[in-house]
Amino acid sequence: MQILVLNSGSSSIKFQLFTMPEAKVICSGLVERIGLDNAKISYRSDINKIEATEIINNHKDGLQFIASYLMDKEIGVIQAASEIEAVGHRVVHGGSTFAETVEITEEVKQKIEKLSVLAPLHNPANLEGILVAEEIFPEAKQVAVFDTAFHQTMPVDAYKYAIPNTFLDENNIRVYGFHGTSHKYVSEKAIAFLEKKKNSKIITIHLGNGCSMTAIKDGKSIDHTLGFAPMNGLIMGTRCGDIDPAVIFYMVNSLGYSLDEVNNLLQKESGMLGLTGYSDLRDIEAEAEKGNSDCKLALQMNAYRIKKFIGAYASVMNGLDAIVFTAGIGENSSVIRELVCNDQEFLGIQLDTKQNEIRSKEIREINLPSSKVKILVIPTNEELEIAKQSFEVLSS
Amino acid sequence: MQILVLNSGSSSIKFQLFTMPEAKVICSGLVERIGLDNAKISYRSDINKIEATEIINNHKDGLQFIASYLMDKEIGVIQAASEIEAVGHRVVHGGSTFAETVEITEEVKQKIEKLSVLAPLHNPANLEGILVAEEIFPEAKQVAVFDTAFHQTMPVDAYKYAIPNTFLDENNIRVYGFHGTSHKYVSEKAIAFLEKKKNSKIITIHLGNGCSMTAIKDGKSIDHTLGFAPMNGLIMGTRCGDIDPAVIFYMVNSLGYSLDEVNNLLQKESGMLGLTGYSDLRDIEAEAEKGNSDCKLALQMNAYRIKKFIGAYASVMNGLDAIVFTAGIGENSSVIRELVCNDQEFLGIQLDTKQNEIRSKEIREINLPSSKVKILVIPTNEELEIAKQSFEVLSS
Repeated sequence: MQILVLNSGSSSIKFQLFTMPEAKVICSGLVERIGLDNAKISYRSDINKIEATEIINNHKDGLQFIASYLMDKEIGVIQAASEIEAVGHRVVHGGSTFAETVEITEEVKQKIEKLSVLAPLHNPANLEGILVAEEIFPEAKQVAVFDTAFHQTMPVDAYKYAIPNTFLDENNIRVYGFHGTSHKYVSEKAIAFLEKKKNSKIITIHLGNGCSMTAIKDGKSIDHTLGFAPMNGLIMGTRCGDIDPAVIFYMVNSLGYSLDEVNNLLQKESGMLGLTGYSDLRDIEAEAEKGNSDCKLALQMNAYRIKKFIGAYASVMNGLDAIVFTAGIGENSSVIRELVCNDQEFLGIQLDTKQNEIRSKEIREINLPSSKVKILVIPTNEELEIAKQSFEVLSS
Repeated sequence: MQILVLNSGSSSIKFQLFTMPEAKVICSGLVERIGLDNAKISYRSDINKIEATEIINNHKDGLQFIASYLMDKEIGVIQAASEIEAVGHRVVHGGSTFAETVEITEEVKQKIEKLSVLAPLHNPANLEGILVAEEIFPEAKQVAVFDTAFHQTMPVDAYKYAIPNTFLDENNIRVYGFHGTSHKYVSEKAIAFLEKKKNSKIITIHLGNGCSMTAIKDGKSIDHTLGFAPMNGLIMGTRCGDIDPAVIFYMVNSLGYSLDEVNNLLQKESGMLGLTGYSDLRDIEAEAEKGNSDCKLALQMNAYRIKKFIGAYASVMNGLDAIVFTAGIGENSSVIRELVCNDQEFLGIQLDTKQNEIRSKEIREINLPSSKVKILVIPTNEELEIAKQSFEVLSS
């Protein structure tokens, strides 16, 4: 089955075409800057790699460009749109409505639209992607895979905030958690690697543009660092992560900022950027290496917060079999991994500093043989996970 | 040396008179509802216990009433104001300025006033108490003991927020921590009990009206759950504790609350009150006992969050010798202690459920003999700690 995976943002569409269940990537690419004069499309197959600048007015045009590349006589990989049997869509917010991947119906689309109140930047773009995919691939089945779904197994102790009950009951304010597709993917890989499905206690650490951690017991998410929105928990590229809410009131009431300014500040000017002036961890590591004390401190603070959540989750799971590093930073930054795993013998975590330095695209174990807790690096693959889940939902 | 300890709030003055270094309480009491028609004064010595309603217009009148009780021919304990050699004042916010208890000078008063920006509800009242005490006990030395001072040993990784550096450098936005007098007092008792000053790793859990936890390494605070203000971290009587800051923006931007309403909601209508309708833990425990599911859940959520911080602090200290429960709830709620200590064997915590039920005013150990981590209940005594520190600063 040929499954096209789409990740539609407000001004971009990422795509990847798989043959399933073989999980073979046929081609992939990205349309960026939709709506601007100089939209960019990149396309890559086994034998071709193309970048072009185009005028792309909207998501429909963008997806039409993608379809035309897929079916192009010279560089294409299919002959007709009908060869795409399914389109798997990443949808950011499934609220408490979607605990699983679903085939898209009219009702599903209405519910995704209704959930836009919780993800006003993401869900409308995801829905737009669904609508144009239905037009361009009318014969394909459409499937929605939600970022939040994996975390719907969280117990109420973990997802409820200590605010009046009405805010949960009427306004759906609670911990949802995000990056679920990635956490699910790598945790399943970890469980297979450990050969321990029952009673497994794993912490997955997703460190990319966004950063989050999940406590995973017996394969199920039981707690997570991101909450109502992808803003709190770990220190991210430009987002502050955990902060005393009193700071927000102080910034408005005593420092004279508007609430929108504070929101913007905490989401776009904070995190590693606010601490160092750089948002890309590679720059920060390079600067730290040269002796930049802000960069050194930011790396320490970042790791310190990860450490605290490792302890917190080991405590609530009453045990720990493995910690898993994944996503851009998690897979590539030996510096962050070392800072996190240092001085953690009490929890049974002992890093093999040599193994930690080896770069690879494969799943790998980087703990010392004596370490009670396995330290794993597992490359994430959200697109493949979406293809896999789409295939499963259509096969069942 | 006779030391009068004063804790001046916005409309109240708590007092306690000690003979030091014997730490003998001579008398104690409280003036409440200052400024209202029906102010109340209560006074208690070894042989007398009195309650009266008076018109008390301001702090000066209040302290004058206290002085007149102390010197009263029938029920008093001293003959002249000059017998009070020192007055120890609780001051809430010492910012980054005061890492220790100090004798009060003009400069100290100016600094306390300047710090009012960080504690607008508390520091002005504390300062008012100092000014009237100087008038009424002009021969006494005045000493300031800060709630925040004990936490000034926190390393920057723990106290800095991931927001642009200027907010720390120019606006002093950082983690300060509170309840320091209590955490210091019980941690010193714990260290003496453990007979382990060097390399000791202790977590103190102060559960009263406000709730907080401190990671204490070698006798020094290295991390703490309250931050810039006493609002975040654990679930408190009416305060929410940790919450995704995105919730605040959502309440204002999507639900139409004003920022002041949200502040009020999170500080005064949340926490255990918001979850159950009750703010007193004894009521909540009684209701839970009767089967009230909101109350049961709130107790679980409360304990769940404490558990997470135990793990977090064990992780950053890379070890754990003891956890200490203190303050009203910590000392008296065997229910909360059991919920916290359940299923914590991985961290080496094993509760003796029988010992846990014993009520006492003494320091006590409630872990099983096999528990690697000691579980201690230590009654706090902030007034005594203030008297002790005042005595020390004047004796040195």
